[in-house]
Amino acid sequence: MKKTTALKSLITSADLEILMEAHNGLSAKIVEEAGFKGIWASGLSISAAQGVRDNNELSWTQVLDIVEYMADVTSIPIMLDGDTGYGNFNNARRLVKKLEQRKIAGVCIEDKVFPKTNSLISGAKQPLADINEFCGKIKAMKDSQIDEDFVVVSRVEAFIAGLGIEEALKRAEAYRQAGADAILMHSKRTDISEIEAFMKEWDNRHPVIIVPTAYYSVPIHKFIELGVSVAIWANHNIRASIAAMQDITRKLYEDKSLLAIEDTIAPVKEVFRLQGLEELEEAEEKYLPNKLIKDDL
Amino acid sequence: MKKTTALKSLITSADLEILMEAHNGLSAKIVEEAGFKGIWASGLSISAAQGVRDNNELSWTQVLDIVEYMADVTSIPIMLDGDTGYGNFNNARRLVKKLEQRKIAGVCIEDKVFPKTNSLISGAKQPLADINEFCGKIKAMKDSQIDEDFVVVSRVEAFIAGLGIEEALKRAEAYRQAGADAILMHSKRTDISEIEAFMKEWDNRHPVIIVPTAYYSVPIHKFIELGVSVAIWANHNIRASIAAMQDITRKLYEDKSLLAIEDTIAPVKEVFRLQGLEELEEAEEKYLPNKLIKDDL
Amino acid sequence: MKKTTALKSLITSADLEILMEAHNGLSAKIVEEAGFKGIWASGLSISAAQGVRDNNELSWTQVLDIVEYMADVTSIPIMLDGDTGYGNFNNARRLVKKLEQRKIAGVCIEDKVFPKTNSLISGAKQPLADINEFCGKIKAMKDSQIDEDFVVVSRVEAFIAGLGIEEALKRAEAYRQAGADAILMHSKRTDISEIEAFMKEWDNRHPVIIVPTAYYSVPIHKFIELGVSVAIWANHNIRASIAAMQDITRKLYEDKSLLAIEDTIAPVKEVFRLQGLEELEEAEEKYLPNKLIKDDL
Amino acid sequence: MKKTTALKSLITSADLEILMEAHNGLSAKIVEEAGFKGIWASGLSISAAQGVRDNNELSWTQVLDIVEYMADVTSIPIMLDGDTGYGNFNNARRLVKKLEQRKIAGVCIEDKVFPKTNSLISGAKQPLADINEFCGKIKAMKDSQIDEDFVVVSRVEAFIAGLGIEEALKRAEAYRQAGADAILMHSKRTDISEIEAFMKEWDNRHPVIIVPTAYYSVPIHKFIELGVSVAIWANHNIRASIAAMQDITRKLYEDKSLLAIEDTIAPVKEVFRLQGLEELEEAEEKYLPNKLIKDDL
Repeated sequence: MKKTTALKSLITSADLEILMEAHNGLSAKIVEEAGFKGIWASGLSISAAQGVRDNNELSWTQVLDIVEYMADVTSIPIMLDGDTGYGNFNNARRLVKKLEQRKIAGVCIEDKVFPKTNSLISGAKQPLADINEFCGKIKAMKDSQIDEDFVVVSRVEAFIAGLGIEEALKRAEAYRQAGADAILMHSKRTDISEIEAFMKEWDNRHPVIIVPTAYYSVPIHKFIELGVSVAIWANHNIRASIAAMQDITRKLYEDKSLLAIEDTIAPVKEVFRLQGLEELEEAEEKYLPNKLIKDDL
Repeated sequence: MKKTTALKSLITSADLEILMEAHNGLSAKIVEEAGFKGIWASGLSISAAQGVRDNNELSWTQVLDIVEYMADVTSIPIMLDGDTGYGNFNNARRLVKKLEQRKIAGVCIEDKVFPKTNSLISGAKQPLADINEFCGKIKAMKDSQIDEDFVVVSRVEAFIAGLGIEEALKRAEAYRQAGADAILMHSKRTDISEIEAFMKEWDNRHPVIIVPTAYYSVPIHKFIELGVSVAIWANHNIRASIAAMQDITRKLYEDKSLLAIEDTIAPVKEVFRLQGLEELEEAEEKYLPNKLIKDDL
Repeated sequence: MKKTTALKSLITSADLEILMEAHNGLSAKIVEEAGFKGIWASGLSISAAQGVRDNNELSWTQVLDIVEYMADVTSIPIMLDGDTGYGNFNNARRLVKKLEQRKIAGVCIEDKVFPKTNSLISGAKQPLADINEFCGKIKAMKDSQIDEDFVVVSRVEAFIAGLGIEEALKRAEAYRQAGADAILMHSKRTDISEIEAFMKEWDNRHPVIIVPTAYYSVPIHKFIELGVSVAIWANHNIRASIAAMQDITRKLYEDKSLLAIEDTIAPVKEVFRLQGLEELEEAEEKYLPNKLIKDDL
Repeated sequence: MKKTTALKSLITSADLEILMEAHNGLSAKIVEEAGFKGIWASGLSISAAQGVRDNNELSWTQVLDIVEYMADVTSIPIMLDGDTGYGNFNNARRLVKKLEQRKIAGVCIEDKVFPKTNSLISGAKQPLADINEFCGKIKAMKDSQIDEDFVVVSRVEAFIAGLGIEEALKRAEAYRQAGADAILMHSKRTDISEIEAFMKEWDNRHPVIIVPTAYYSVPIHKFIELGVSVAIWANHNIRASIAAMQDITRKLYEDKSLLAIEDTIAPVKEVFRLQGLEELEEAEEKYLPNKLIKDDL
């Protein structure tokens, strides 16, 4: 099955599906190996991994290079967190073309203004895009895709901007009519009240995706009950790696002993395995003259 | 102090110094925050992070882009694991120019043939560079640097290639005479016997750097005793992050609960902090008209 | 003299100075060899060379890569046509940092909205930036430069937007006070009336740069008379190369004869010379073992 | 027709076909508009355009970025001059994967050693690749392509290296058997004697491509007579643009008058046309709310 078709199926399936965050080729591979059916290429995680802020400090082509690494080493579909589409409709449709070439299965764009600010930063101004302009962007993206299953998701930031359910519904409906394959309804409340209110009014009109980073304590059966199509574990790999690297780095700095930590981290052989060493060794047998492959040690 | 001068000081200091591995902007920042005085931009880790193999699958400019992110968010010096210099003397000297512009403090090149194979892969053929050609490469690099403190380290792969102490000494001495600022003597034995034999014959002629990945159980006082200048913890951040991401991904796949893992990973606020949110908020106060900064929520 | 200092001198000199357009390493070198003292890295020409539109279809890092090639092969200063700074104050100040590392001497930003539209396209909407926001951008850029001679020019698009002399003066004065090193006053009229009106009111308050693409028939002594600091020949190399390539390509397609055109184009040896072959041959003598340099033909 | 299929057809057609050089998006578009059926993405021209040497000073991903621009704006097939494949079989097969994604129709690799030296530089050492290793590279490339019509051409540098017809034939036959879709037989003689000798012995075994840069005075009917499949006009656009830019730059430097040269270069409107302005204006009508498109001037 094509990656695009696989992503579309996840979104339209009757069950609640999960996308797990990755931010580079390595984490993408780990997500696939764990059994997940799809990957969320998180803008927050990707920017954090490079050490920059989630304010479009990375150019869109820098982001593109990173998701290309991710797609190259995985067979499950990737949905890119495409911020605002990195400009107007023209930038957004160029993005679609480039994502398709690199076998990214879909992209989510949010109805904010370039350059964006992360939605979870407390108190930050979150100006929303003009609805008509954003609908034009969605149409342009859908019209420019070559593969009919490529997925364009529209993220509604009405709740993030402090606006109410009316605005959220109005925008979701406009984006649905503009051609979005699903609506991502975001909320930074620690409970699920905003999402719940929306889902009840929305009444299964079109697939809905949620990102329960702030309301992490809400159990998954609640999402199922509300009719959510996809939930995204949106930044947990980068946060796991931060905790682990801070811990190991601190220990190595203090103890100056590799021995003490050797068994708590992945062995070097596991690094090689994840990189695909085995395939290369087989290929060398096939394509390199014998004398170049092995030492006679 | 310039980053180059700081790195040079580490190498020439009387004490044993440590460089800690990083592979992206995030891990580089973590290394600096832990207190380390310098960073090793590991070729293995950088390639593993993108999901590719340590066989020059990344182009040299892709590597350059990654170390640029690292240098942008840190103030301690970075030494790049520059493989073979990515070609001949001309490629290597171009690399030096580009590294200097991006404020990388130094680079280590190894006396193997492009494209390289990781030194720790068991049984792999490890053809060595012609000594004269490699010395020409070192000279070209030293001649092309603008900052006199930029560091060029020559890594001797004689032991890795299964050759003995004679070859290791011959090469180390040739590279020293060609102008290398230090010798990195590599060994994949699980004990320190090769390094020990070399250090005794070498007799403190010039700074020596080691990478005790394979002989991790050797305590650090042994390195001090042998007169080693710098030891490199060469891949422990990537290995820590792999273990952590595999663990969290597996748990999330099996338990489908964010609540269960929330407290075991870094909080979202810590991600924001590492990205430098605070500086941006201060800058917005300074450079953005008031109405654009904060929501009146 | 540093490139930044050289550019600043051009701008502040009593004489009318000229910047000549280039759009890649090759054209930059040609501009320097002709005797020009500075280069204009034109946004129109750079985008046209890649075959894309001058609407920020290129990401800012793609532009950066191109001007890096240009700076690498020239010793005269380059001023980048930096569009709107590719986003808000934060994107613009990051740009400054990256330009400085790559030895670009200065950048010009225009007071329009991202993504921009080329100023010479007839009838296109040209919404202007909020003055206060644009002034914040200029301040942020000036505050972030490390080299005190790095040049930030503010381009006023009031005339392009169809607004009059009042708006042009108001913006120019605001940008001057915000710290811009010079004002670029743009006009798409085929006569010099707008520029003339501005220069009379401006009264030499601060250096003024002009781009006489549309009013090409106005002789240079008129610019001198008006007190213009710098005139930019903004796109004439790309336009010369288009005419030449269209001509040669058409001839080769029709005549199918290389002989007929061989003497009308640069010889292959001239290509090699422009690439710097001679330096490489000297370097090979110095750094490559003899056996690798020359064939014994 | 797919671009790959179109290129394959050119190579296998009974007629002599021509590929015309381009080195960026702009020149590629000009080549297509002139009527040519295919484009040669020349390594010499691409490196010259950036101002660097044809010695693999550009990384392979930098080259990739450039041909991507070219493919994005054209519908005729592009064959990349892929030097030696930028490393061993593994680098070469990775290149194929990346070229296919970017809709490049084929690649030609030459049997020299990385980093390469341009074949036309007089007296330069031109060490050839080991035949077996090079055949393994061809096999690896052919095995890795997804589209069965993607073209891999093997360029024989035996004549360039000063070796005779025996070596040329031996290599051509080995590469044919390894799976190359065509043989490019290179010669730097100013007459066609080497090519003629080869073609007679080769006896139409497999398609042959030639590059008559040095023997430009040989008329095309001679190539037809010898049974050549494809001739490449390999660097004439860059050479035309050099002559034109040197000329215009010199004139502008000396005369300081735009008026004098305005009619000898392409008008600004022609630049806009080549960039595809019209399509964007139509798209704005479609996707942008009315108020954002046109000024009411």
